[in-house]
Amino acid sequence: MASLLDPSARGRVILVGAGPGDPGLLTVRAVAALAEADIVVHDGLIDPRVLDLAPKAQRISVAKRRARHTLPQEAINALIIAHVKTGAIVVRLKGGDPFIFGRGGEEVEAVRAAGLPVEVIPGVSAALGCAAEAMLPLTHRDWSSAVSFVAGQCKGLSEQDWSGLAGKGRTLVIYMGVATAADIADKLMADGVAPDMPVAVLERGTLAGARALKTLLADLGQMVEREKIGSPAIIVVGEVVELSDAQDKLAAWARAAEALEA
Amino acid sequence: MASLLDPSARGRVILVGAGPGDPGLLTVRAVAALAEADIVVHDGLIDPRVLDLAPKAQRISVAKRRARHTLPQEAINALIIAHVKTGAIVVRLKGGDPFIFGRGGEEVEAVRAAGLPVEVIPGVSAALGCAAEAMLPLTHRDWSSAVSFVAGQCKGLSEQDWSGLAGKGRTLVIYMGVATAADIADKLMADGVAPDMPVAVLERGTLAGARALKTLLADLGQMVEREKIGSPAIIVVGEVVELSDAQDKLAAWARAAEALEA
Repeated sequence: MASLLDPSARGRVILVGAGPGDPGLLTVRAVAALAEADIVVHDGLIDPRVLDLAPKAQRISVAKRRARHTLPQEAINALIIAHVKTGAIVVRLKGGDPFIFGRGGEEVEAVRAAGLPVEVIPGVSAALGCAAEAMLPLTHRDWSSAVSFVAGQCKGLSEQDWSGLAGKGRTLVIYMGVATAADIADKLMADGVAPDMPVAVLERGTLAGARALKTLLADLGQMVEREKIGSPAIIVVGEVVELSDAQDKLAAWARAAEALEA
Repeated sequence: MASLLDPSARGRVILVGAGPGDPGLLTVRAVAALAEADIVVHDGLIDPRVLDLAPKAQRISVAKRRARHTLPQEAINALIIAHVKTGAIVVRLKGGDPFIFGRGGEEVEAVRAAGLPVEVIPGVSAALGCAAEAMLPLTHRDWSSAVSFVAGQCKGLSEQDWSGLAGKGRTLVIYMGVATAADIADKLMADGVAPDMPVAVLERGTLAGARALKTLLADLGQMVEREKIGSPAIIVVGEVVELSDAQDKLAAWARAAEALEA
């Protein structure tokens, strides 16, 4: 950490989007920022191969330490600011893109309020990375002219207003929704989305063991349970799902159920 | 183009997202694909420095040749397929991400219908790249829990249903909308969006000469005219605009108008 010893070094923060998982989906600028980092403050779910791109950096994880316990945002902000004030180049590494469900905006505000310089390097958001792998076009001239991103665990699910975001001609992507998939399906159907709207779950997209599975909205919660789908995963709701390579798990399940009955 | 002469080479297509403009926002995999490309079929608005990353490739532009005339999609598909059949590695280079207003889905369908292999490398979509530069968080715990992307020139504007996508607690990003900015503002206000909703225009984001300007929705068309904003540019509608570094052009204009009157 040479710059800590160099009195001319100016501390600064670089918020870096780490992309969807695959280290090959980092941007060129993200790789350069990691190479010059003195400190990397990172979320969970960052691939070890990504962290290895910052060989001289001290790594600080702000990931969940116990189930459902993350470092509070204020503590993360304070940690970043304290390190920058020592003159370090601090890379704040966030899954996906810093400004899409990354709380990047809050960290920028905090760092600036402390009078310190900050820049943001965008990343390939999880929806884009997972969709490319599953050959799922998020928009399509014939099928969808709008794509929306929401988060399944952002505040209470029941408090969130998703009305109109899913339906004919529109694609809705739900981040961090796999744990509440059944509630999400109920919520969307209550908002008027057809129970037979195609839905895909893209699990561990761009990482080893990735799965792309599809069913119909009414079966979403049950499919997640049957197939034991875990985090990280995104849910895609819309007709474009039919164009993708996702495996049809409703048909497979119906066949299995039929076979059992016979 | 060695692989054209090598009978063992297998032709294939790689759809590559070129990101928002800055070559540093290409992904590592995109750079690798360009390095091995025999043919690069690219849109307009791709930075020459990006094309230089494919030194051995023949470059084919399918950009506008005259105002408002692009090669029809069917002709682009046929061009790609013909080259792949010679055994070439064809990189189809698209601005932003191939599956967000990139017609990537149509090209995948066409290549597969011809029985040829295709893969997709995602990219940083323009909204993400421009937002990072302008310090404009597309979502924010206090201000916006949903972000939607639509295209201003995708089919007829009046045919498009954007109802509910913009408003309190939501962010709407409009791609390719600068030419129809006044109509877009009218359309959104007719859908019930408040005339004083903040709106930013991010012009040439991540490229030399980038500008980030903001005003209120009712002034959007006039601001684009006053400031002579051109393509490429994206429009962002929502309260998160207030958090950004975009210059307030409504205040500046009001002051100038006041000064003229005095």
